Amino acid sequence: MDEFAFIQSIRPAYLHQKSLIQGIDDDAAVFRPGNRDVVTTVDTMVDGVHFSKDTMEPFHIGYRALAANLSDLAAMGSVPAFYLVSLVVPKDYSHEELKGIYEGMKELAEAYQVDLIGGDTVSGKELSISITVMGYVKIGEARYRSHAQAGDRIFVTGTLGDSRGGLELLLNQMDSSSEAAAYLIQRHRQPSPRVRFAASIHDIDRLALNDVSDGIANEANEIAAASQVDLHIENNWLPCSQALAALFPNDSQEWMLSGGEDFELLGTVAEENWQAVQAAADELHLPIHIIGQVEEKAKEFGQVILHKNSEAAVLKKSGYTHLKGGE
Amino acid sequence: MDEFAFIQSIRPAYLHQKSLIQGIDDDAAVFRPGNRDVVTTVDTMVDGVHFSKDTMEPFHIGYRALAANLSDLAAMGSVPAFYLVSLVVPKDYSHEELKGIYEGMKELAEAYQVDLIGGDTVSGKELSISITVMGYVKIGEARYRSHAQAGDRIFVTGTLGDSRGGLELLLNQMDSSSEAAAYLIQRHRQPSPRVRFAASIHDIDRLALNDVSDGIANEANEIAAASQVDLHIENNWLPCSQALAALFPNDSQEWMLSGGEDFELLGTVAEENWQAVQAAADELHLPIHIIGQVEEKAKEFGQVILHKNSEAAVLKKSGYTHLKGGE
Repeated sequence: MDEFAFIQSIRPAYLHQKSLIQGIDDDAAVFRPGNRDVVTTVDTMVDGVHFSKDTMEPFHIGYRALAANLSDLAAMGSVPAFYLVSLVVPKDYSHEELKGIYEGMKELAEAYQVDLIGGDTVSGKELSISITVMGYVKIGEARYRSHAQAGDRIFVTGTLGDSRGGLELLLNQMDSSSEAAAYLIQRHRQPSPRVRFAASIHDIDRLALNDVSDGIANEANEIAAASQVDLHIENNWLPCSQALAALFPNDSQEWMLSGGEDFELLGTVAEENWQAVQAAADELHLPIHIIGQVEEKAKEFGQVILHKNSEAAVLKKSGYTHLKGGE
Repeated sequence: MDEFAFIQSIRPAYLHQKSLIQGIDDDAAVFRPGNRDVVTTVDTMVDGVHFSKDTMEPFHIGYRALAANLSDLAAMGSVPAFYLVSLVVPKDYSHEELKGIYEGMKELAEAYQVDLIGGDTVSGKELSISITVMGYVKIGEARYRSHAQAGDRIFVTGTLGDSRGGLELLLNQMDSSSEAAAYLIQRHRQPSPRVRFAASIHDIDRLALNDVSDGIANEANEIAAASQVDLHIENNWLPCSQALAALFPNDSQEWMLSGGEDFELLGTVAEENWQAVQAAADELHLPIHIIGQVEEKAKEFGQVILHKNSEAAVLKKSGYTHLKGGE
């Protein structure tokens, strides 16, 4: 396909960001941040590794790829502004399929007023999609993993493990006619980056945030390591959707810890600010739950301790636990 | 390979950019542009399409991929500051090879004080490398293709067609022991983005710039279309290196027009500013040549006219010419 013709076919009809000076028509794009910090990250997904045409329409592939990136910006407390897309496309991929990928990104981009400002489309053996996003945050107000402190409440938005449940339904071609199954599949294919929630709590002084891409076992460990604190998580407080509990009663526990790709936000906040966090989530009709508390580290490094009934175990990045003290 | 361990192994020992607030240790990087515009672009190269292990060491693959991106920033008059790298790596790729790619990028990044601020490495069937770069430019001073005006001198830095000559030597395993051959191969594997030159002429009010990635036939047409002017180019003024003329006397003419990947800068500037442009190039010991003049468009759209002896022909994007008026 003629790359130029394709770019014309997917170029945004309308640009949302007033700070954009030059879009996709020159060697590079130009924007004017003014008195704001810029937040940026890149994420790449490859066919057969991160998604499959068996479980995703092109539309979902595009939607989910951009959602994963916007989720990273949300976890920095940043409001997304721009994205650039690089696609490697196999020769047998049709123009319709390619357009489907862009349509998926576009739907999400419209919802969050994010402008496409660059990218390229090149030929290759397998489909891969690499997205770079850029967002703004007030000077010095980015949220870091290293900002957790002893005494903080640990919270998580939404529910956990749903995306993994949806994937399982699709992979095993299980009955997807129920409302519960449709819900889990939707959560897998079209996750909701918590951009608005993160933006709505920007006036809270200190907050550690991380987005749930690999599972909270992993993300909690990242916060513990970066902040040099212990995160104590109550297993029974982990939020499980009714759909997941109903369809996967035996797996929900493991998937909530290590399922990943829910793109919810895991955070810690001072006790006195918890009510403001909860009020912000309520305003957006976004479920939010306290799942534990931050304490001083017991060893030389920060760890995650999972409490279950009267037992406590160290929770590893993988989601694997072993009895506390057995280290 | 453990992605985290790999990132640690290639992380920059020293950061150059004072505006960088947070590097590669969180969900995203954070930087503070202050009173400057940000310029950004992405470019992707795929094994077998844009490069080959037969003609490039991993070091060169990395070097050239970043060079192509920095060249885009130079063409915007922007000083590069940051880059993010996304690599899709086949399983049979060794750690050493992967490190070679990063070493190639690192050498160029050090030379231009560009900091690595993000990226990911994922598995796939074929090697592909996607780089996003970001640079700064003074408010409102970016250089656009649309800024050419009738009466402008057309200039090009360096010499043309060398990269194509180097590729030909490598593809056909020709004798590369001569100084001329080594020169062309070097120009193909390690092109020099004209970042310093572009920065050194920043006080000239108006300048159209485009970098030579596809060949000046293509780039000149982009300027003509964006500026709605005709670019008249004198064939005999096109700059040819002694090396290319000596080794490829029969091909040099075609390759200067459509060879591409020289990553020189093609520009147009008002006659009264030409001396300042030339002085800036001289200061950097960078050859620079006038190759023609901009005129009002003769038709409803801008075109490129190639003059050769007493004949004139329309030069198409591809480098193909046909007699003027035959349209």
